[in-house]
Amino acid sequence: MIAMPKLTPEFWMARALTLARRGLYTTDPNPRVGCVLVKNRRLVGEGFHARAGEPHAEIHALNDAGSAAKGATAYVTLEPCSHQGRTGPCSQALIDAGVKRVVAAMQDPNPLVGGRGFAMLRKAGVEVECGLLEDEARALNPGFISRMSRSRPFVRLKMATSLDGRTAMRSGESQWITGSAARTEVQRLRARSSAVISGIESIIFDNSRLTVRADQLQLEDAEDIARRQPLRVVVDTQLRLPLAAACLREPGRTLVATCSRDGERRKRLEAAGAEILVLPSGHDGRVDLEALLAHLAKEEDANEVLLETGATLAGAMLDADLIDEIQLFMAPTLLGGEARPLFALPGVERMAQQRALDIEDIRAVGRDWRITARPLSTGVRRRAKVP
Amino acid sequence: MIAMPKLTPEFWMARALTLARRGLYTTDPNPRVGCVLVKNRRLVGEGFHARAGEPHAEIHALNDAGSAAKGATAYVTLEPCSHQGRTGPCSQALIDAGVKRVVAAMQDPNPLVGGRGFAMLRKAGVEVECGLLEDEARALNPGFISRMSRSRPFVRLKMATSLDGRTAMRSGESQWITGSAARTEVQRLRARSSAVISGIESIIFDNSRLTVRADQLQLEDAEDIARRQPLRVVVDTQLRLPLAAACLREPGRTLVATCSRDGERRKRLEAAGAEILVLPSGHDGRVDLEALLAHLAKEEDANEVLLETGATLAGAMLDADLIDEIQLFMAPTLLGGEARPLFALPGVERMAQQRALDIEDIRAVGRDWRITARPLSTGVRRRAKVP
Repeated sequence: MIAMPKLTPEFWMARALTLARRGLYTTDPNPRVGCVLVKNRRLVGEGFHARAGEPHAEIHALNDAGSAAKGATAYVTLEPCSHQGRTGPCSQALIDAGVKRVVAAMQDPNPLVGGRGFAMLRKAGVEVECGLLEDEARALNPGFISRMSRSRPFVRLKMATSLDGRTAMRSGESQWITGSAARTEVQRLRARSSAVISGIESIIFDNSRLTVRADQLQLEDAEDIARRQPLRVVVDTQLRLPLAAACLREPGRTLVATCSRDGERRKRLEAAGAEILVLPSGHDGRVDLEALLAHLAKEEDANEVLLETGATLAGAMLDADLIDEIQLFMAPTLLGGEARPLFALPGVERMAQQRALDIEDIRAVGRDWRITARPLSTGVRRRAKVP
Repeated sequence: MIAMPKLTPEFWMARALTLARRGLYTTDPNPRVGCVLVKNRRLVGEGFHARAGEPHAEIHALNDAGSAAKGATAYVTLEPCSHQGRTGPCSQALIDAGVKRVVAAMQDPNPLVGGRGFAMLRKAGVEVECGLLEDEARALNPGFISRMSRSRPFVRLKMATSLDGRTAMRSGESQWITGSAARTEVQRLRARSSAVISGIESIIFDNSRLTVRADQLQLEDAEDIARRQPLRVVVDTQLRLPLAAACLREPGRTLVATCSRDGERRKRLEAAGAEILVLPSGHDGRVDLEALLAHLAKEEDANEVLLETGATLAGAMLDADLIDEIQLFMAPTLLGGEARPLFALPGVERMAQQRALDIEDIRAVGRDWRITARPLSTGVRRRAKVP
């Protein structure tokens, strides 16, 4: 016997969240949002945002409900917008349709506009509540929230490692540590990201394409998803990217972040298909990573970025407190003490300096294991100490 | 509503296994064994082996049942013995009590006596079945089975590591990577072992005592358990063990396995409390590890041994295919690429040489994670290739 679910507000919001997830790979740079309209304990309309330029979730739900929207309660995973975008303000559409009550999971994370949608609704006599299943709603859009509230993307570091914390043999050989199920998960991480960042050394050694491949996603709408390729970003302080690099020949854009002002090299790379971004150097003489992330948020509307790289760049990003989430794909194998490490952390020499993490999840992925961890902030930014 | 368990043979054998587990920390060098007597679908007696020199599980169960044993079925986790030990053959006792049927989980693993108990029972007209929940029964006594069938102990390697596969800082500093819950689990691993093996470098650096501490076991009968201290074994090729080493002053024995024939040093160590075992050297000039394990099985009746050591000895044991199980206690922290590795595997330079494992279990232990893995045999013993 299967118990009927109780038709609580949480039930309806959970349904809205499920709808929102259907936009996981396609809404970029917009947030993933879902909406359900409920009247007399019945669902009368539902919708989700699928793609920038197409209607927001609320509009889809209103269209789905038609005249039944009048007097309904709207459960929506994000505060309805108040601005005249490509599709008109959703708050006004809810008012016009006669919606009686709006329950939102969270306020708009943009501090400049957050709360205006609610104010517009309240002014028109619509009841408003906010905060139902907020944690779940925030988890859907870590990148959008980060960009709006911190002006930088959400940075997710992905690494494939052996059980003894090694990403490659000393020679650099690494294909393949993990199995095909893990590689599918990595493809999905790319597909949900606005940009994929890699270091020049990884690009030179592996000649990575950094693309989303439809045939590896194992998703029904894979072809459709792969039509949007995340921006490829190569951190390349000295413009060493080979003109024949595979990533330059793939669909989508490749941005080379550099400190080099070598105009000749730059021209040749541009002719080969790269876009060049000159950034200041950080305290270590390499591309300033914080400036890179700020650029990606501001100029590229980057929400989630996936960092796929080796120990040096991964360690530098960790050291600068710029990593929000680590996804380790751990294979049941040992590569030994001479193989390449996960993180170069040159400043860590005593136990008191160890970098603590919160491990949020460990689960099997094929024969491998996926560990999701969140670095705990050091509190003190080491780079601040460097003159 | 809780459903009543069905009184199947599996139910009764599971009860016998539960009883057997109560001897986990105390039966050494005997196996852990449990027995229940069932008549007319009712439990009429039960028992487990608690300690060498005390009655076997079957005798306890028969005493518990008294005259009700007549006509009963005995569920026992290991074939009843047929030899005249300190307590008389259990098979004869079951016959004498009028037990009608014996269901055993597994045969005696000693190839020289396995099956004799069953034969004795059958000859007296008792029905015999074998193999019910055999995997579970074997998992209870990996060490006893290994000693009896391979003449070597079951070797369990325990290591504490960071998420990036590091056991200590470059300086050797390592206290504490893992938390107190993990340390309690390590104490329990020691407590169930016949011997604890450590390398001389670990002993010199950490001055480890290698003892079972009652106050850390978090078990009801901790004081009782800690009365039996596992044999401490130090692999010390050149007799470098300091005379003041803490392990020499603890209750129980310390065996120093060496290739050194320095009589003077030996005498001084013996005076300080050590026992010296001179062994041949292996192909690498260090103590022959296979010979050490054979000695521990033959002369010390060692069932399970716990290997607590650093990358060099752990790597050498792995390389020699002498590790049966790895228990990694993984802390949510990063120590960086300069910190000490888990395994030195000098022969592994290409991906094709990686050491594959079966990961059997991953579970949370306090804020840390315990990973249980089984090395897959290389098939080819590398040492065999060395002249």
